[in-house]
Amino acid sequence: MRILIIGAAGMVGRKLTARLVADGHLGGKAISALSLVDVIEPEAPQGFSGELERRAVDIAEPEVAATLVASRPDVIFHLAAIVSGEAEADFDKGYRINLDGTRYLFDAIRAASENGAYFPRVVFTSSIAVFGAPFPEVIPDEFFTTPLTSYGTQKAIGELLLSDYSRRGFFDGIGIRLPTICIRPGKPNKAASGFFSNILREPLVGQEAVLPVSEDVRHWHASPRAAVGFLVHAATMDLGALGWRRSVTMPGLAATVGEQIEALRRVAGEKAVKLIRREPDPVIVKIVAGWPTAFDARRAAALGFKAESSFDEIIRVHIEDELGGQL
Amino acid sequence: MRILIIGAAGMVGRKLTARLVADGHLGGKAISALSLVDVIEPEAPQGFSGELERRAVDIAEPEVAATLVASRPDVIFHLAAIVSGEAEADFDKGYRINLDGTRYLFDAIRAASENGAYFPRVVFTSSIAVFGAPFPEVIPDEFFTTPLTSYGTQKAIGELLLSDYSRRGFFDGIGIRLPTICIRPGKPNKAASGFFSNILREPLVGQEAVLPVSEDVRHWHASPRAAVGFLVHAATMDLGALGWRRSVTMPGLAATVGEQIEALRRVAGEKAVKLIRREPDPVIVKIVAGWPTAFDARRAAALGFKAESSFDEIIRVHIEDELGGQL
Repeated sequence: MRILIIGAAGMVGRKLTARLVADGHLGGKAISALSLVDVIEPEAPQGFSGELERRAVDIAEPEVAATLVASRPDVIFHLAAIVSGEAEADFDKGYRINLDGTRYLFDAIRAASENGAYFPRVVFTSSIAVFGAPFPEVIPDEFFTTPLTSYGTQKAIGELLLSDYSRRGFFDGIGIRLPTICIRPGKPNKAASGFFSNILREPLVGQEAVLPVSEDVRHWHASPRAAVGFLVHAATMDLGALGWRRSVTMPGLAATVGEQIEALRRVAGEKAVKLIRREPDPVIVKIVAGWPTAFDARRAAALGFKAESSFDEIIRVHIEDELGGQL
Repeated sequence: MRILIIGAAGMVGRKLTARLVADGHLGGKAISALSLVDVIEPEAPQGFSGELERRAVDIAEPEVAATLVASRPDVIFHLAAIVSGEAEADFDKGYRINLDGTRYLFDAIRAASENGAYFPRVVFTSSIAVFGAPFPEVIPDEFFTTPLTSYGTQKAIGELLLSDYSRRGFFDGIGIRLPTICIRPGKPNKAASGFFSNILREPLVGQEAVLPVSEDVRHWHASPRAAVGFLVHAATMDLGALGWRRSVTMPGLAATVGEQIEALRRVAGEKAVKLIRREPDPVIVKIVAGWPTAFDARRAAALGFKAESSFDEIIRVHIEDELGGQL
């Protein structure tokens, strides 16, 4: 089993790599080769004894994709993307990487599949950014995709290509629309969604965090561990049940900021909650008002995808995976 | 007012040209220039006294689009497409014209808009092929687009680009999803949908026609005249009400083949109906089973788009527009 991860240097890519190396197999087959690709050279994982390749590439260079599939990986995780804020700030860069890069990859697989018996599994990470307001309080699986960002547009186009190339028999593709990942490890960042993680992660280690919105803001979350679980399940499940509707909104937990804070209180006590400083930011309030609040992700549930069922659990996952198991 | 029609040599393009020339104005402004473009050189319309340009071009050649917008047309109708059957048979050609050609056009407009005060209206013809089975008997406006053809995929991608480029302020775009056009003038063709027109058009002039499906097949129709009306309305209406959801399912008439035949009987009598030969074709039966039957196109209705309300009317439009007003 040969595995290619495009976008391996990102947070989810690194966690996926670690999980695959720890498991040693995927879908019951030993992992013999791991190819880690990103715009910077991904770090070497600890303890992998198979064939390892690490490369820094620009996937928007037309000739790169063929080199990525030259070794005929059985499973391709395509996680690489220019994120929402940057794709909005730099129109050309977003379309270049998120649309052209994805299409070059799919076309390279198609060329390889037409040259011989090659039919890889392709797992494409999409996003709930494919949806754009106004929407119902709970978004059903058959709701239309009308993105309000160039990033969401590029992901929705990637989903359409994925389904068509799968239907054409070039590869066996699945797109997974990730919830907002919470708790993101690392430092506070300026992403508009950053505070959802900051207000938990920082107080858990005795640091202050800023809450820029009101406590009744409701959003859709899953842990990094759950996200990796989605990817592994997507790589190994039977895709026949999907038909040609190859993209699926992942399960998650709909919770208000107030519910997040109550969970923090239960897990880490009042002194942690006291570290959250309320500092309303009208810019962030406005951005977040356009985001989905909850999904009825019953299709994903029926397909066996699993996320956390409480914010206490999301916090405990963070403590286990990032803080060595204790506060 | 300068108008560019890309795909001007096709059936709808020719009818749109004739309508614009007959009107002499669009949205209250006199039409001073008409640029007619297609893969073959469009015919010159009768009686147009303004500046006329006719060109045969390949819109998938990257440098062509800039030449199309060089004269800064105020309204651009983008009707050009590789149709469903051909886009399915020739994967590269469909993506080249329907996706790349559309994107080159949009990017050329963007480049022009960034170079100066240019902000044209762009009317993009999409299709109900953006929807793919299974769907409800009546498809609501917020239903998701999961096409089952490469053509439908390319149209859905065009819609996404149209909305994003409009949101970015590069042009003022609207996508209109046309129903199946009935009665298509001309000769019977081999399109799987051809019989919907054939079983009316041929008997109206005393010719036999073949019905390959059963009478309970239900589908979504509008006349060529209604289609031209959609285009003109899309070119002149205020698009503010659309928000950034720039594509709209056009109104139409949901009717069974049996209802079509009853209308034919009322308009042209039993001897016309007798010319329909039932000859079931399992291939066509299967294709048609995957097509939408009806839409609840209330958004289009609220925006002022109008189609026929009976098949008698659709037949009468054909008699007026194609048969000189009488049988």
